[in-house]
Amino acid sequence: MSYFTEENSADAVNARIGADTDPRLREVMTALVKHLHAFARDITLTQDEWDYAIGFLTRTGQMCSDERQEFILLSDVLGFSMLVDSINNRRPAGATENTVFGPFHVADAPIREMGANISLDGKGESCLFEGRVLDLDGNPIKGACIDVWSDNADGYYDVQQPGIQPKWNNRGRFFTGADGRYSFRGIKPVSYPIPDDGPVGQMLGHLGRHPFRPAHMHYLVIAPGFQKLVTHTFVGGDEYLTSDAVFGVKQSLIAPYERLEGADTVWRSPFDFVLVPG
Amino acid sequence: MSYFTEENSADAVNARIGADTDPRLREVMTALVKHLHAFARDITLTQDEWDYAIGFLTRTGQMCSDERQEFILLSDVLGFSMLVDSINNRRPAGATENTVFGPFHVADAPIREMGANISLDGKGESCLFEGRVLDLDGNPIKGACIDVWSDNADGYYDVQQPGIQPKWNNRGRFFTGADGRYSFRGIKPVSYPIPDDGPVGQMLGHLGRHPFRPAHMHYLVIAPGFQKLVTHTFVGGDEYLTSDAVFGVKQSLIAPYERLEGADTVWRSPFDFVLVPG
Repeated sequence: MSYFTEENSADAVNARIGADTDPRLREVMTALVKHLHAFARDITLTQDEWDYAIGFLTRTGQMCSDERQEFILLSDVLGFSMLVDSINNRRPAGATENTVFGPFHVADAPIREMGANISLDGKGESCLFEGRVLDLDGNPIKGACIDVWSDNADGYYDVQQPGIQPKWNNRGRFFTGADGRYSFRGIKPVSYPIPDDGPVGQMLGHLGRHPFRPAHMHYLVIAPGFQKLVTHTFVGGDEYLTSDAVFGVKQSLIAPYERLEGADTVWRSPFDFVLVPG
Repeated sequence: MSYFTEENSADAVNARIGADTDPRLREVMTALVKHLHAFARDITLTQDEWDYAIGFLTRTGQMCSDERQEFILLSDVLGFSMLVDSINNRRPAGATENTVFGPFHVADAPIREMGANISLDGKGESCLFEGRVLDLDGNPIKGACIDVWSDNADGYYDVQQPGIQPKWNNRGRFFTGADGRYSFRGIKPVSYPIPDDGPVGQMLGHLGRHPFRPAHMHYLVIAPGFQKLVTHTFVGGDEYLTSDAVFGVKQSLIAPYERLEGADTVWRSPFDFVLVPG
């Protein structure tokens, strides 16, 4: 038995894990302690810095409520959420890539007819979204559910503005037929800041980072016999594409927005979703 | 410009740090992101595990109050507090080692005469504490302030039991004379559990770890011209010496407790404090 020292610190802590501990918990905690200790050692973390960090973590926890999850926000802006998403959704070439789910999905959105308009507040530039749901061989997938949600032209989701926006504004579910095609009308989404009035926003400020996300549509695509796809399509040309506050952008998810001449619907954004069996 | 990927994740996040960012903040955050991402990658952290961790961090923050600091407790049981203490208090051989400060110090304890009794509640086994405050060459240090605090025989500090224990029970400050000697009476301290009714206690349970600290006396020793010493002396033979919940034990800090025959004071614990110039 040797006591804790600066040199053996992580091993000393991990040696305490009991024999009956769940093997995965042991693996996770052993790695966590190893990396946390290496972090402190690499930069010779001072006591004052650690005291500040304790206060930061405490404020972050105390900012959380039923409507606000500041720790998820912290994870998002450190790229940790995207890394966890990436690690757990490795896909073959040709499949549509995943990105972060985000906090604004609402289950059981209305099921709408193909071509229906999900924008209920009359704001924004109308856009036709259309494309197909395909397998890796290019065959259409029948019975796929495309669950879509986006912010309105003011940059807010309906759940952020109850009583101001109509319920289910810019949300809907669409089921594909035998041709795998989908189409609906919505608006060209706009960029918006993540909530930055808490500790995470302060941190971004200290790091010289802005809180904006590039404009995007959220999609959850589910089809029997295929892996669930959680993704966005991003508006090509958005000024924040290369500086998304939460690192959600992937090149393959940037969708074209084509301007339509002389129509009520002023944009068209085509995009095919390619699902992986599983 | 390349987008975030699983492979470049930490670099993609750190590339966002603004040019005008404080250099030390840049250094700390760059290392933090690097190690956090390596942790997730090493163990292929799952989404469910990360969701659980978000909930754990949130509960930990929300457990904090003016009387309870659950994040410090978390840092303590992961050995992180001791590591930060070790990194920042490297001392030459012969000097008394530091250990964690703990949450129970109270500033401005009563200044007492040498030999006075700090135990005011009449509980516990009386003990004579004595020794010298010395420099690295063995010379006595005059005018050193020895600020001591400990739990009572029930395992609680006075501040944990206002109205039950007398104020300043088991606390006092003593100033050395030209001989560097100190002596006072207290009680042989007892082991006690850290607060384990919160998320950190649950975590210890899942890891098969107990929440106990071995019995110890706290000392803060300050002398003009010398580095501040924050330390404990531990009771030799305590059953928790090799499994301190917060990893505070160092071999050099284990003090003898000698039983005295036929005296009111039943124990004697000698210990010399050796300070480093600075």
